[in-house]
Amino acid sequence: MYSFNNDYSEGAHPRLLEALVNANLEQNDGYGLDVHSQAAAASIKKLIRREDADIHFLVGGTQTNLVAIASLLRPFQAAVAASTGHINVHETGAIEGTGHKVLALPTPDGKLTPAIIDECLKAHTDEHMVQPKLVYISDSTEIGTVYKKADLEAIHHFCRQHDLYLYLDGARLGSALTCEENDLELSDIAQMTDAFYIGGTKNGALLGEALVILNPAMKADFRFMLKNRGAMLAKGFIAGIQFEELFRDGLFFEMASHENEMAKILRNGIRELGYSFYSDSPTNQLFPILPNGVIDKLEQEFLFSRQYVIDDTHTAVRLVTSWATKETEVHRFLETLKRLG
Amino acid sequence: MYSFNNDYSEGAHPRLLEALVNANLEQNDGYGLDVHSQAAAASIKKLIRREDADIHFLVGGTQTNLVAIASLLRPFQAAVAASTGHINVHETGAIEGTGHKVLALPTPDGKLTPAIIDECLKAHTDEHMVQPKLVYISDSTEIGTVYKKADLEAIHHFCRQHDLYLYLDGARLGSALTCEENDLELSDIAQMTDAFYIGGTKNGALLGEALVILNPAMKADFRFMLKNRGAMLAKGFIAGIQFEELFRDGLFFEMASHENEMAKILRNGIRELGYSFYSDSPTNQLFPILPNGVIDKLEQEFLFSRQYVIDDTHTAVRLVTSWATKETEVHRFLETLKRLG
Amino acid sequence: MYSFNNDYSEGAHPRLLEALVNANLEQNDGYGLDVHSQAAAASIKKLIRREDADIHFLVGGTQTNLVAIASLLRPFQAAVAASTGHINVHETGAIEGTGHKVLALPTPDGKLTPAIIDECLKAHTDEHMVQPKLVYISDSTEIGTVYKKADLEAIHHFCRQHDLYLYLDGARLGSALTCEENDLELSDIAQMTDAFYIGGTKNGALLGEALVILNPAMKADFRFMLKNRGAMLAKGFIAGIQFEELFRDGLFFEMASHENEMAKILRNGIRELGYSFYSDSPTNQLFPILPNGVIDKLEQEFLFSRQYVIDDTHTAVRLVTSWATKETEVHRFLETLKRLG
Amino acid sequence: MYSFNNDYSEGAHPRLLEALVNANLEQNDGYGLDVHSQAAAASIKKLIRREDADIHFLVGGTQTNLVAIASLLRPFQAAVAASTGHINVHETGAIEGTGHKVLALPTPDGKLTPAIIDECLKAHTDEHMVQPKLVYISDSTEIGTVYKKADLEAIHHFCRQHDLYLYLDGARLGSALTCEENDLELSDIAQMTDAFYIGGTKNGALLGEALVILNPAMKADFRFMLKNRGAMLAKGFIAGIQFEELFRDGLFFEMASHENEMAKILRNGIRELGYSFYSDSPTNQLFPILPNGVIDKLEQEFLFSRQYVIDDTHTAVRLVTSWATKETEVHRFLETLKRLG
Repeated sequence: MYSFNNDYSEGAHPRLLEALVNANLEQNDGYGLDVHSQAAAASIKKLIRREDADIHFLVGGTQTNLVAIASLLRPFQAAVAASTGHINVHETGAIEGTGHKVLALPTPDGKLTPAIIDECLKAHTDEHMVQPKLVYISDSTEIGTVYKKADLEAIHHFCRQHDLYLYLDGARLGSALTCEENDLELSDIAQMTDAFYIGGTKNGALLGEALVILNPAMKADFRFMLKNRGAMLAKGFIAGIQFEELFRDGLFFEMASHENEMAKILRNGIRELGYSFYSDSPTNQLFPILPNGVIDKLEQEFLFSRQYVIDDTHTAVRLVTSWATKETEVHRFLETLKRLG
Repeated sequence: MYSFNNDYSEGAHPRLLEALVNANLEQNDGYGLDVHSQAAAASIKKLIRREDADIHFLVGGTQTNLVAIASLLRPFQAAVAASTGHINVHETGAIEGTGHKVLALPTPDGKLTPAIIDECLKAHTDEHMVQPKLVYISDSTEIGTVYKKADLEAIHHFCRQHDLYLYLDGARLGSALTCEENDLELSDIAQMTDAFYIGGTKNGALLGEALVILNPAMKADFRFMLKNRGAMLAKGFIAGIQFEELFRDGLFFEMASHENEMAKILRNGIRELGYSFYSDSPTNQLFPILPNGVIDKLEQEFLFSRQYVIDDTHTAVRLVTSWATKETEVHRFLETLKRLG
Repeated sequence: MYSFNNDYSEGAHPRLLEALVNANLEQNDGYGLDVHSQAAAASIKKLIRREDADIHFLVGGTQTNLVAIASLLRPFQAAVAASTGHINVHETGAIEGTGHKVLALPTPDGKLTPAIIDECLKAHTDEHMVQPKLVYISDSTEIGTVYKKADLEAIHHFCRQHDLYLYLDGARLGSALTCEENDLELSDIAQMTDAFYIGGTKNGALLGEALVILNPAMKADFRFMLKNRGAMLAKGFIAGIQFEELFRDGLFFEMASHENEMAKILRNGIRELGYSFYSDSPTNQLFPILPNGVIDKLEQEFLFSRQYVIDDTHTAVRLVTSWATKETEVHRFLETLKRLG
Repeated sequence: MYSFNNDYSEGAHPRLLEALVNANLEQNDGYGLDVHSQAAAASIKKLIRREDADIHFLVGGTQTNLVAIASLLRPFQAAVAASTGHINVHETGAIEGTGHKVLALPTPDGKLTPAIIDECLKAHTDEHMVQPKLVYISDSTEIGTVYKKADLEAIHHFCRQHDLYLYLDGARLGSALTCEENDLELSDIAQMTDAFYIGGTKNGALLGEALVILNPAMKADFRFMLKNRGAMLAKGFIAGIQFEELFRDGLFFEMASHENEMAKILRNGIRELGYSFYSDSPTNQLFPILPNGVIDKLEQEFLFSRQYVIDDTHTAVRLVTSWATKETEVHRFLETLKRLG
């Protein structure tokens, strides 16, 4: 069965594997101090136009989020997130495991706004409550939506006014930045956040997330933090080599564009068949609402997940495309859906 | 410069890379639920003769130690380790970061014994002190020594008598089990510990440690624990594929034997040149005591680390061999040392 | 100005102070091992008809909650609470500070029900999410409501069915158990929970909460847990002496009855003046909804807190009565309100 | 049996109880914001000549240590303590419970020195080890010794040079500052530390430790920290009233002088009987080394603890005097010892 389950079912783009094979017998320094990690960091710094950034390569999204957030907050401070946010729902309490509350705020579309955050600040009036201190957003969000430049600017200014950190989870930043609706660049994000990460795992790497730290206070001693949480890879060059290749000549964005292109075909096809969507996602995660009977049959030929129960007879499923998604399978999915409808 | 700095300077054994390349476009289940991880686990269970074991693949040693230990201990319980133990010295407080004290006990040779542990138990008399509950050992130890079967049996029985968990850090278990002094088998360890891990990172894998859980109470809900600490790899099959290959036909032990063989040539050669050693290591880490002047010159041709200051004019350095160590470089090191002596 | 701010503005009932004075020059064992603590525990065990209970005296509510909950949960497990619950809102992230998420569930009246908890369980499907494991309720609740016997039985059975711990925060248990609406006895609570505490601080003691542990697994080594969190009082007899007196002949319930009586006069008086209430509280916390202009003037003569904004011109204030509340002041408050209305 | 077990066997100095009784029916603000806590803080600030200090009243020593230290350290940072230090041995891992390693350094007399700390710093070379960041000392120490002014100055300068925090545990600061060997004043300590606490529990209060914060960074939001750890007393005025009385006219020092005076009689008497001491303590804890046979008989008339096994036939016991110790009992102890010797 062909899988639209997620964007991490396959290994890595062949060029990344080739780079690993080519460097395999080199003797590299350990723990991320190797030349490949340095070269990858240099490429990213150039791309985001922040030579002052510190860049660390970690292994996965939950790990990156917990290390970054725990490095910033004092014990009584909390992270603010959309109630659908990954740190709130899908990290098995990893942030709380570092001692910090996640303040979960309902949103219409998975995106925080200054007004939503402000309401949270106003409700936290004194030392009997946690102190909201870090705003966590992700682009794209858990339900596939993206932040426009104006959205991010508004949050950025609000955070500066209220002395809040702004942290962006970029597990699917590739798809966000290359989707049609997007008007953000990496360099904008680097101007407006204290830290963010560029996701490799969900964009064609074997593994690896590039954490970009802009806030000088967060930079200090960050390698201690990595080691303290078991997040410092002995063979750090494994991630370094892949990110070097991802950002050598735009491969990262090429792969992201492919997954968006595949998602676009799916989205348009499903819409033409008369189905609506749970969220208005322009990225590589789609949430069509389908009759349960149709889903039962689709599941005999394709892998994907049931996400949200809509009513007794309808469910929003999640379809995810990746750098490796085959266009033929996308068309086969649409044909199957048409046939079942 | 050729490096004897550690056993994780190179990538992976070519067969492991080949396996990754071959499986690259497969669609695998995420989070360690794939067929390769299952096959690797099955091989290991057979090898250790414990079909009831639970096996999880993690990314690195510090991560594996902290997840395993935190899963076992209640808040007021402590891990007992040799004062030279990795969790005590070289993990940046990762165990304490999970809330648990490490009780560090001096040892003559990096190895715990029932007598040493018993002294610690006797000093912890009541609820005003932590409760020693888990014994942490590593094989080989931080200074290259190994546990004999009788050593491990003695600790095992002591732990059962005193209701202590026994956990073995096998970051360099390959080298330990294939060294000349060894009389332990993997299956012995699986009979005598509550959990242990088989290190891949330091034995020819790109990354990966196979955590073997024998204690039924520890098995329960362990995947929650993994995720809670950011230790669940999205593309878990990356580790699974490598361990499948490592244990398909003995490659794991072949590589370990090679590193021991290289260490043996080094050890004998250095000894013949009249130098003594900081510890009596039969494994792939050697700690020869050299005059500082000789070290200065060696450092112009080889990479290795200065480990322990012996006196004003002598230092114990650390030389580490790996699956990839070239015999020609071993001989060149010895010739250089001879020339400098 | 007379204060209806809370039920911990005054010191202790004179009989408690007298008992402290009388025992002052005794030499007592430290850390709660003294004869007074034992006598107090014996009285409580008899009252709750559970000779097997373990009873510990702690200093305050937040401390008691965090020690109790942290002693029960494994790292990836979460507490379930009403979104208005004290541990969710008013403990500055103390539970999260021990590493555990609080799953906050909206309720109509501050009370959890099996249906509400069940929805939470159903939403937590796998190891990518925390594992709900402990149900936290308080009686009376944060908004003054109480659990009926049938309510508690329903939750108790649900928890047993789903292998959840049930923990009851009794900061204001005195008021709850002596209010007119109540049909629960202490012995019922002791049959239906894994642990609960009887609040002294808010019921006439200088300080002190009696934590009653029924679950055998939680009893084990609990004194280590106390000490580990800084919750073991050196002069534990200070709390012991007070609880001995509180439960010698019903003083605890007498004081609670007084505060309920004072609250009843207030409640009826306010209602007669035509005002409604934010919640239907039969206990010593009342939340009348008053016009802001009236509140401004009341604040010139009485201390109390503004709690919930109802609309642009109305606010629900909080009035709390205590063991020490003077009936004359209650009447003066009502007269003042009448005059201002 | 008369007890020399500790200095917290009795209640409080009668003047403190009287003050509590006198203020009992006042309505005071909660959580330490009352006028008594403010007056007590004002007295202390005047005494230490630091109007800029922030002063908080906590309930016990372990609690105070863990809140203070956790408020200062980042996750990968460690506290440095004498291996005999209270936080290392007698707090059941409370500091590790907040996530921080305690680096335990052997000392000849329970006192840290710049040389001892420096050795620790030099051994911690990089991010693979914790970062020593806070120096924990206590005055008097666990074995009764005291810091001279020159000792403290040396540590103070060392800490400033190396960017370390200096924190002083003053559980028995009264006894230290009033002993004959002492040449420190409270105001010296306030000039040389980042924070310290003045112990009330072990110096005649029912409970209470006055935490004095000098470091501006530590002051910020400290009340959040208190609440987050369950260390904010609802009836904070209980501690405030007592400290107000303790520092109204020197009662704190009077009581400490009494306990030192009683200890002096004991010390001289024991010495005259030909016994030696485990440590050279000028304060209220004495550690005479006695034959086990003598101890067996003494235990039939007095309570005290066996502390350190010296050899097969001798043990160092611990005798502690307090504000309430009766001189007649001191003499009776000496006579009994004489008779048994």
